[in-house]
Formats: sequence, structure tokens, C-alpha cells
Amino acid sequence: MTQVLSVECGDRPGLVHGITGVLFRHGVNVVGNHEFVDRAEGRFFMRTEFDGDVRAEEIVGELRTLLPNEAVIRLSRLEPKRVVVLASTEHHCLGDILIRHAYGELNARLLAVVSNHQVLEPLVSRFGLPFHFVSHAGCSREEHEAAVRRTIAGYSPEYLVLAKYMRILSPEFVRAFPQRILNIHHSFLPAFVGARPYHQAFARGVKVIGATAHFVTEQLDEGPIIVQQVIPVDHTHTAEDLRRSGRDIEQLVLARALKLVFEDRVFLCGRRTVIFD
Amino acid sequence: MTQVLSVECGDRPGLVHGITGVLFRHGVNVVGNHEFVDRAEGRFFMRTEFDGDVRAEEIVGELRTLLPNEAVIRLSRLEPKRVVVLASTEHHCLGDILIRHAYGELNARLLAVVSNHQVLEPLVSRFGLPFHFVSHAGCSREEHEAAVRRTIAGYSPEYLVLAKYMRILSPEFVRAFPQRILNIHHSFLPAFVGARPYHQAFARGVKVIGATAHFVTEQLDEGPIIVQQVIPVDHTHTAEDLRRSGRDIEQLVLARALKLVFEDRVFLCGRRTVIFD
Amino acid sequence: MTQVLSVECGDRPGLVHGITGVLFRHGVNVVGNHEFVDRAEGRFFMRTEFDGDVRAEEIVGELRTLLPNEAVIRLSRLEPKRVVVLASTEHHCLGDILIRHAYGELNARLLAVVSNHQVLEPLVSRFGLPFHFVSHAGCSREEHEAAVRRTIAGYSPEYLVLAKYMRILSPEFVRAFPQRILNIHHSFLPAFVGARPYHQAFARGVKVIGATAHFVTEQLDEGPIIVQQVIPVDHTHTAEDLRRSGRDIEQLVLARALKLVFEDRVFLCGRRTVIFD
Amino acid sequence: MTQVLSVECGDRPGLVHGITGVLFRHGVNVVGNHEFVDRAEGRFFMRTEFDGDVRAEEIVGELRTLLPNEAVIRLSRLEPKRVVVLASTEHHCLGDILIRHAYGELNARLLAVVSNHQVLEPLVSRFGLPFHFVSHAGCSREEHEAAVRRTIAGYSPEYLVLAKYMRILSPEFVRAFPQRILNIHHSFLPAFVGARPYHQAFARGVKVIGATAHFVTEQLDEGPIIVQQVIPVDHTHTAEDLRRSGRDIEQLVLARALKLVFEDRVFLCGRRTVIFD
Repeated sequence: MTQVLSVECGDRPGLVHGITGVLFRHGVNVVGNHEFVDRAEGRFFMRTEFDGDVRAEEIVGELRTLLPNEAVIRLSRLEPKRVVVLASTEHHCLGDILIRHAYGELNARLLAVVSNHQVLEPLVSRFGLPFHFVSHAGCSREEHEAAVRRTIAGYSPEYLVLAKYMRILSPEFVRAFPQRILNIHHSFLPAFVGARPYHQAFARGVKVIGATAHFVTEQLDEGPIIVQQVIPVDHTHTAEDLRRSGRDIEQLVLARALKLVFEDRVFLCGRRTVIFD
Repeated sequence: MTQVLSVECGDRPGLVHGITGVLFRHGVNVVGNHEFVDRAEGRFFMRTEFDGDVRAEEIVGELRTLLPNEAVIRLSRLEPKRVVVLASTEHHCLGDILIRHAYGELNARLLAVVSNHQVLEPLVSRFGLPFHFVSHAGCSREEHEAAVRRTIAGYSPEYLVLAKYMRILSPEFVRAFPQRILNIHHSFLPAFVGARPYHQAFARGVKVIGATAHFVTEQLDEGPIIVQQVIPVDHTHTAEDLRRSGRDIEQLVLARALKLVFEDRVFLCGRRTVIFD
Repeated sequence: MTQVLSVECGDRPGLVHGITGVLFRHGVNVVGNHEFVDRAEGRFFMRTEFDGDVRAEEIVGELRTLLPNEAVIRLSRLEPKRVVVLASTEHHCLGDILIRHAYGELNARLLAVVSNHQVLEPLVSRFGLPFHFVSHAGCSREEHEAAVRRTIAGYSPEYLVLAKYMRILSPEFVRAFPQRILNIHHSFLPAFVGARPYHQAFARGVKVIGATAHFVTEQLDEGPIIVQQVIPVDHTHTAEDLRRSGRDIEQLVLARALKLVFEDRVFLCGRRTVIFD
Repeated sequence: MTQVLSVECGDRPGLVHGITGVLFRHGVNVVGNHEFVDRAEGRFFMRTEFDGDVRAEEIVGELRTLLPNEAVIRLSRLEPKRVVVLASTEHHCLGDILIRHAYGELNARLLAVVSNHQVLEPLVSRFGLPFHFVSHAGCSREEHEAAVRRTIAGYSPEYLVLAKYMRILSPEFVRAFPQRILNIHHSFLPAFVGARPYHQAFARGVKVIGATAHFVTEQLDEGPIIVQQVIPVDHTHTAEDLRRSGRDIEQLVLARALKLVFEDRVFLCGRRTVIFD
């Protein structure tokens, strides 16, 4: 039974020594360990993975006496995360997630797919998952978001994944799921924020395009970045070619980010992420 | 004796057939050929490299009767380009250019290095090239640029290369060398235009950094892009680490762009470049 | 109606001029054109894509009078290729193909999946395609291959795709589908030919792993390469981690190769491929 | 004054706790820490970088009582390594090293360049370093190596760098500098061991080429790999083009490896390397 201990607190001398001491005295069998001090923010991060049946409450209790009060300490089994996916009309990211989920690759349990279009319903149905069509036709953004949130609420998900969900979420919506919404943006952020990034990239004549998976915050396309990758392009690519080539990198980047987040490998440090892979 | 024919004009049917017909009747031995139609702009581009002693004027004359009046036709031996380098204090791009130039890799003849600092003089001297220190201390941008231009003028260069020249050039300066100034920008444009891109990249928490070689136009960092490359980074990199890692990619990207431009492989198409490599 | 003209023959002066002349006189609207001369082999390759209703037989007839007898000339609409997939137990390449096929991305019609294991049947069934389990238990390689070939024969496929099919095909089998079997090898060939390449890569301590899509020839892992890509790895990766990370690149490389081959963009030139992308 | 503690020993529980305890009690200011357990070999590796004036002998003494007898413990200031470079006729790796060395980027002191050709002497002289021409003409490999070793001996280098030294070293030579000879091989090992890798790569039709920096062992091209990188290529590249493109990646890979080794960031673990970057 693999368990993961995560610690995050203000940095000070002796943290590694102290924390490893607690684990050592409990006789845990560490199979992976990462620590990092972000000097710009003065924050300490640690993630330790270990096997064996441990008295989790006792370990956490001892760590609490050792660490500053503000320390964030989590010790848990790596249970699959409860996830709802939001999508619009594009199938590639959603399709890739469905396959990976079907084979248990993401440490997640997909509860449902919610979409403002109907076109992806057949794909979702192939995998026996609930699909909810919540039309935005004829209603305000507030009304539509309220309907989406009601649909989501029935599933109590830990995370929302925007798999090419082409609607901009209101700050209220985002605040309801703090640090729990993951998005794939189809450009190498911060280049080409906003709409139609492939058309922007074509017009600018770039020689590399990319995709960015990030946490959603109230500022559009400004949230902490989890994974980025790029591919080379050249003058023979039209904007449509860029869009097509970009899809492969989008699905890879999103899948990679989901795996990292759902295995508790991603920490937030101000606007940046610390990733223990 | 390798010669290069470049043709650029509005697209219309039969261009390739017509141009290759002229070359065929002159019995040239084509060793490399590229053509491209940019549909967004409706422009035709062609670059043909051939061996053998040809009657260049006759070929160009026949092509003129065949092609639209606005066609740009060049047929020339691939003579090394006459180049002046501008630098400030960083050695890595300049050093790389000096080595490549010393071994004839760039199809260029470096005439001189001009700098607003003295620190690179020893490096340039090792390679026996003129070094001109043109201080910007105590003078206006106009005065400094005038002094730089006087220094450059003595060499009549075809191209200026900004090898980490940390001064922003005035529109007047740029207009004096239209499409003949090459710059290396230390970010993946259009991300992080302007000053201190590595600090911007650190603050934004990107997972990839890059460098961009581009033509200089009157809008800072907005000129047509020639070469871009990126490298992955992670949370362990400080802004200073990014700067250090970025230098390797900067020198590679600039060298690559210089080689392409000086071998007449780069065409301008609006804000984009067409590159026949 | 997009049509594609492919020409391949021994190189000689005037080929481009001659071929473009035929197309020009027929008034075709060329939307993409590539040509290449392989000097090592003295072979000429050309691929032209054009719109419009043309008299294909007349064009081919005129080209025959123009080109050497040995020339290979094809002019056809880009019809989806008829394809049978062979797989064993791994789902990732097959899953990716099924999604892309479902959305018409591959210019292929998947006719069936044949496997020597049953485990992938549920995945294939989700997409409503025939799945044939042809067990190799208790039969010789000859007997098993005969059974597989009988199953395939019912579909008359143009191409076979080995999507992590972990059986080595006999020369007889390969000869029955000359240049029509595509394989994904889970290493950067020619490194780590043969079995368990990720374990070989781990033991050798490489810092980059890759995947290779190639045509299958009678020599194992020696066929012409179509697409290769790599990803960086480090000392923290176990052999199992390499295998897991490698899967993402395998599925991307295979999908890319299928798209290129099925759009008639891949030419064979001895042991190498010429790819017009 | 930055100091680096390196520890390597058989793995057992409590090592991190014990070692960090010693450092904590000595009040060192840790600025960077890495540890790694290689489970395949059962080895523990740790590298800690810290500031401040410490009683190094006391720290090492306390660690000796704590750690197994076979533990390798080093604590030292990061003094520049004493290095001799061997080269033949190619300038690009040597030139890059000379520039980086001139600006203190490699944590090394270049003592001399030894070559079996004279052609690189002018380049080395530009940088004011000793150049030793040791001809192999008319002498056996044993005689030539003896002469090279006599030349090297005068400098007592810690490391030898083979910067495109095109002679195969005898096992005796290699044994004289155990784990202290660094080589750049112009392919992505283990693909294309031996001579003329770019010609091999061309003949095999690969779509990616690479370079490998590795420790030299008695088996040619079989030593532990430090850095590898690759670049994409295509059918338009001749063997000569591959060689030319490959040079850029060779010089980058070698420079990267030298920096890592000379900053004591590379540990050997059987045939693999552990790199704390």
C-alpha cells in the first residue's frame, strides 16, 4: 500500500533532518523522496512515497509538533481522484483521457463529462460514462454556469478538467474550485493568450508552437503552469496546419499534467509550480 | 562555382514550368531546388542552386520577359556577405560567431565588431579583427547612434548582427538598414518582449525557455522570425539559471539564423519568413 | 476533389519542367508540390496535390511518353486506405488509432483488429469494429501465421499496422505484404533492436529514449524508417518508468507515420524514405 | 565559499536523516541538496552544496563513524579541475571549450591541448595556451601513446577531454586515467558505435541524429553516458549535411557534460551515471 507524505512550510534549517527522523523512527520503507527549497519565496516542499502499513495519525501528529504551525502536512494513500471533465466540441484531449482512464493510467476516477455541445456524446457513451449536455443557447453566462455547477455538484468532484472547453469561466465559478481546475491552453503561454492562438501564431510567423497545461485562476490564461511542450513548425504550415499539429501536443501535455496532479506531485508556490516527478 | 537563383513574385499558374524551362534550355546542372507558394499572401518563392558556368545575364533577361514586372529576380554566386557585429558585454554569441567565422562556416566576412563597452575587446583581438568602442556615456541616444553609424559606414556592410547588443535602436537607425539587421532575442517571442526576459520567464513559472533570431524592424521585438529553439526548465532553475542555460540556445539559434540568411535561404513574406533549407 | 500525382524515376535534366508542363496544359490548380532528387541513388521523386476535375488517364498517358519506362506514376484521389491492425496486449497505440480513426484523422478505413490475445477485445468493441482472436497457443509459428493470414485475407487490406504486435513475422509473411506492413518499435532504432528495448536502454544508461515507426522487411527492425522521436530521461527512471514514458511517444510516432503513409506522402528510396510533408 | 559534500554507499534506512543531522549540528547553510537511491544496484548517492566556513575534517570524521566503511565521502571546495584536451583536426568542440574556458564557465583550468595534427595550433595559440603536436606518423600505437602520455604527464591533469580526438585509446592508456577521460561521440549511442557514425546514420535513413558525451572505458564507446541530445533530420540531408548539423549538437553536449563533471555533479553507478543538476 503506497502512501504519500507531502509537507510544505516556510524554510528553516533542519527540516529534512527532522522529518526524515520521524519517518525513520516509524520504520517506514521510503521508495521515493524529493525536497526543494524555493529561495525566492522562502518555502520548503517535500514529498515522500513509502510502502507499508504505518500509523498515519501518529506520524502527522509528530510532524505537527516539529513543524511551524502554518505547515501544510498531508499523508494519504494515493487514492484515485474524483474528476469531472468539461469539453466543448473537440475530441482529441477527451478521447485520450477516456482511453487512459479506461486503463487506469491517470490515478483518477472519471465521474462524468459535461459539455455545452452534444457532439461528443457518442464518444463518451462508448466508454459507458455519463454525458451531460448543458446548452448555453439562449441563456446568460451566469445562467449557463449555474446549470453547469448544478450538474457538477451531483458528483462532488475533487478536480475539474477543461479538455478544450471553449468557454471562459467567471471568477465566481473559478473561486468555487480553488486550485482544482485544470486547463489545456493551445499555445506556449504566455505567448498568445486569449482566443485563436494558432491564428495568432501563424500571423506572427513563429517557428515553434506549443501547448500549456495550467491551473485556472481568475485571470484568464494566467494560472500556474504545470506542463509545457513545443513542436517545430515552418512556413509551409497554414493556421489550420498549426491547429492540427498542435492537437497531438495538446493531448500529450494535458495527459502528463493530469497524471502529475492526480498523483499529488504538483505543489503551488506563488504563481509557479514545484513538480516532484 | 555554385550559383543561386532566387525568384519572388505574385503567384500564378505555370511559374515553375516557365522558370525551369529557362534553366533547362541553358543546360544548368541543378543541385538543389525549392519553391513555395504562400497562399495567405498570394506570393511565389523559388530558390535554385546550380553548378556550372552560365550566362547569368541572359538567364535573368529571359526570366524578366516571362515573369511579372514586380518579380524580384537575383542570380549570383554565393559570395560571403560583408558583416559588422554589434555587441555589448556578453561574450557567448560573439565568441561562437568568431570561431565559426574563423573556419568559414557562416558564408560571411566579419569586418569589425562595434560595442558600447570595452570588455569584449580582448576576445575580438584574439581573432585579429577590428574592435571599435563607441561609448554611450554622456551622450544622447541620437549622438551615440550617429557615432555608431559613422563607425559602421567605414565598412559598408551588407548586414549588421546584434550579438546581444543591449541598446534599443531608433527607427531611424533601423530604416538605414532595411531587412539587413539581425538580432538574437533571449526569449521565445512573442513571449517576454522587452527587457529581462529570463526574469519575466522565472516570475511566470514557465517550463520551457527559448531564443529567437529575427530581423529587426522599427517595432521592438516584432520583426520577422528566422529561427527559434527552446529548452525545458523546471522549478529548480532560478532566474540566473535560466539566463545561464539560455545562453547555449541563444548562440545556437543566432549561428543557425546567420548561416541561413548569409546563404540567401531566407525570404520575407509580410511578417513571416520563408526558409529554404 | 483533391488528387495526388506521384512520380518516381531515375533522375535526368528537365523532369520538373516536363511534368509541370503537362499539368499546366491541363489547367490543374496545384495546391501543393514537392520534388526531391536523391543523389546517392540517382532517383527523382515528385508529389503534386491539386484540386479540380481532371482527365487523369490523359495526364498519365502524356507523362508516360515523357518519362523513362521504369517511371512509377500514380494519379489518384486520396481515398482512405483499407487497413487491418495487429495487436497483442498493449492498448495505448491501438486506443489512439481507434480514436483518430473514429474522427477521420488517418485517411484510413480500419477493417478489423487481429490479436493473439483476447485482452483488447473490449476496447475494440467500444468502437464497433471486428476483433479476431487468433491464439498462438499450442501451434507452430507457421500454423499461427497461416491462421492470421486467413483472417486478414477476408478483408483484402492495403496495409497492415502492427500496433505493438509482439510476434516476429516470418519472411514469408512479410513477403506477402511487400512495403505494406507498418510497425512501431519501442526504441530509437538502430539502438536496441530486438526484445525488451527499454530494459536494454536502462542497462546502458541512456539519457534519451525514443520510438521508431518503420516499414517491415524480412530483416527484423531493419526496414526503412518513417518517423522517429525521442524524449529525455534520467537516472531516476527505472526500466519500468522508461516503458511507461515511452508509450506516449510510441503512440504519437505511430499515428504520425500512419497519417503520412496513408496520404501517400512516403516514398521508398533504397533503405531510406523520402517524406513529402 | 561554496563547498560540496558527496556521499556514496550501499543503501540502508536512515542515511538522509543521519547525514543531514551531522550537517545541521555543524550549522551549515545548505543551498542545494540532492539524494538518490539506485534500487537496481542498492546504492545511495547524495550531493549537498553549502556556504560558509565549516570544519570539513570534523564533518567528514563524524560521517565516517555514521556510514558504512565502504562509503565514499568527499567534502571540498569547488576548485577548478586541472584539464588537458586531446584533439585531432576538428575545431568546433575545441573552439567552444576555449571560449567557455576563457570566461570561466567550465570550472576547469585548461593546461594544454595535445594533438596528433598541427592544424589546430593557430586556434589554441589565439587563447595563449600550450599546444603540443605529437605526430603519429611512422610510429606504432604504443609509441605514439607513450609520447602522448609523456606530454600529458608534465601537466598532472585530473581529467582528459577528448574533443574529437579521432584515435582509439589502448586499454593501457585508459587504465592510467580511470574514470577521468571524457569523450564526445558523434552519434546517439549505442546506435552507430565505431567509425563514421554520420555515414552509418545516412545509410540507415534515421530521422534523428545525436551526440553522446561519456566516460571512456576499455571498451570502445561503451563507457557510462553523461549527456545525450538529438536533432531531427530528414531525407534532404546528405551524410555530409548530417556531419555539419551534428557538430552544433556535439559542441553543446560536450560543454554540458564538462560543466557537470567539473562541478562534481556526476556519480558512477555501474554502467550508468547519476547526475545531480
